[in-house]
Amino acid sequence: MPIIARMTSSPQQQDSGRPGEFELIAALKRVIDDSPPASEVIVGIGDDAAAVSVESGIHVMTTDTMVDGVHFLRERASWSDVGWKSAVSNLSDIAAMGAAPLHTLVTIGVPADVAVTDMEEMYRGLTGAFAEFGGGIVGGDVVSSSVFFVTVALTGRAAEEDGSPVVLRRDAAEAGDLIAVTGTIGGSVGGLSAVLDGLEGADAEALKQAHYRPVPRIAEGQMLVENGVHCAMDVSDGLVADLEKICAASEVGAVIKASDVPVPEELTSQFGEEALPMALSGGEDYELLFTLPFDLMDRLFARHRGMFTHIGHITDEPDEGDRVVMVDSDGVEMDLQSRGWDHLGAR
Amino acid sequence: MPIIARMTSSPQQQDSGRPGEFELIAALKRVIDDSPPASEVIVGIGDDAAAVSVESGIHVMTTDTMVDGVHFLRERASWSDVGWKSAVSNLSDIAAMGAAPLHTLVTIGVPADVAVTDMEEMYRGLTGAFAEFGGGIVGGDVVSSSVFFVTVALTGRAAEEDGSPVVLRRDAAEAGDLIAVTGTIGGSVGGLSAVLDGLEGADAEALKQAHYRPVPRIAEGQMLVENGVHCAMDVSDGLVADLEKICAASEVGAVIKASDVPVPEELTSQFGEEALPMALSGGEDYELLFTLPFDLMDRLFARHRGMFTHIGHITDEPDEGDRVVMVDSDGVEMDLQSRGWDHLGAR
Repeated sequence: MPIIARMTSSPQQQDSGRPGEFELIAALKRVIDDSPPASEVIVGIGDDAAAVSVESGIHVMTTDTMVDGVHFLRERASWSDVGWKSAVSNLSDIAAMGAAPLHTLVTIGVPADVAVTDMEEMYRGLTGAFAEFGGGIVGGDVVSSSVFFVTVALTGRAAEEDGSPVVLRRDAAEAGDLIAVTGTIGGSVGGLSAVLDGLEGADAEALKQAHYRPVPRIAEGQMLVENGVHCAMDVSDGLVADLEKICAASEVGAVIKASDVPVPEELTSQFGEEALPMALSGGEDYELLFTLPFDLMDRLFARHRGMFTHIGHITDEPDEGDRVVMVDSDGVEMDLQSRGWDHLGAR
Repeated sequence: MPIIARMTSSPQQQDSGRPGEFELIAALKRVIDDSPPASEVIVGIGDDAAAVSVESGIHVMTTDTMVDGVHFLRERASWSDVGWKSAVSNLSDIAAMGAAPLHTLVTIGVPADVAVTDMEEMYRGLTGAFAEFGGGIVGGDVVSSSVFFVTVALTGRAAEEDGSPVVLRRDAAEAGDLIAVTGTIGGSVGGLSAVLDGLEGADAEALKQAHYRPVPRIAEGQMLVENGVHCAMDVSDGLVADLEKICAASEVGAVIKASDVPVPEELTSQFGEEALPMALSGGEDYELLFTLPFDLMDRLFARHRGMFTHIGHITDEPDEGDRVVMVDSDGVEMDLQSRGWDHLGAR
């Protein structure tokens, strides 16, 4: 970590170097120091690497990047929201493994026209999310770049089922399992559409909040492991697209019932009949999509009613055609046009 | 890890999406699959996060980024060398903590004009370094970006001294310690200069090799811990600049003897009297700079002669003036003009 490490550089460097760099790093270090410290840190920011104490078990590791002009637009999003969402997209991956966040490395690529105060605001978005959900920042890198990007790498510790560490996997769905999802689906794409269409009012604002300030399902993921669930992922690319991934990894098919998909009321109020298609194909809701045997669903419902919704079931792998089909309330198959979006393309 | 995770996507996505993305990710996955697998992996590429088994102890974590036009020039460096050097700059941070590399996450930001074969070559540079020194790739992210960048995040496991995990720190130098460095210093900046000056011949090529294919001192770092050394860092920003960081962190000063700095013969043959100043201020040698008590140095010399060179000693913190001073063979203080360079500025 050569650059963050330079936070401890001697004053000579500050004077002889480009003052912007030293100032930026010192400002970011102050934001980190003002946030709750990461746990079990032996050596923090300022050495070649961070050092943390670990106990035996299973660790999970993920990384996710946001690039200006690809994943967000600087002109439109607040820097704080960029930081928050960058943290949450990673935290959600940890949640989708049923793990608890541990330690974070943050790298930023900084163009010359980004102000120190912008980056402080972005770091406050990051540290705000880590303070709320875990995963304190222990190091990182700051580099020059002609385009702004932020890369977060995050570790987590697997939860335990009957005393043994277990992770939620995509390839563990079995024919006959029920399919469920936490929270509601479609709020994030609704918020993006509300911004693009210039919608205002309480409902539009609620959708925008879902888009700019999503919440990772950290506690829910661990609860699923502790209750014996084995298959889950987070809804980041769209409900149908993500369910297809579970099906492909598990070599199964799936049926979802359109009327059971939990669409936010605000999405319906703002977009009417478009709400359901938006919910099916929109992404970045960061809810957990999971499958489980019927008897387990029964038990979970008894303990955690309101935390999730039953939306369908897993079938045998189809010989041909789509892995995921949707039916109406009469069980008649419906058309599924849009099947999720793609982060790599411009939005 | 939304994008690498999409490696397991269903064929529908391949057809409906941008073929370049799917093709790229599949190609990179093949390169990773062809390299030695990371150890203790429970869930690898294709889920929300990687999952790895860990034993109790101390883990170290680092991250380092290379941006086209800032840290290298696409037109000049081979993609394989970019990958190799990106891996080594991170491996060297792990070495500087005295740890053994464990698991790697790789993120690439890919402009539209970068070919799949370019990225395969870069990944072969990465996997080649990890195959040689440890730290297999377990996940990552692939995103669009107008400028190419590669971010590596790497974990490692601390070595043990008398059965307890210990890390090499920058803030552990004490007045009276001797200062030593592994290998030779200045080859990398010599190689860069040889490229810029259009130098040819065996000596120039040896310097270019030092610049494009540096070696992290993984085994040496662990050896230092096992022998009771507590203070080290890697030479990434220049010998004097990096020694200043040790001094600032440890609140001490340092004296180095110019004639004892191990400069490669090729640097002297190519650059004459400029060789020493280049060695003092050049960076990216990735040698280990460490301090240790006299009696320990004696023991290390007996066991590992040739592995390192004694170049000076640690003093009390100076009341004023430079923390690091250089003396000639008569002990007379010499001028130290250039004190290292700065990754954040353009080179």
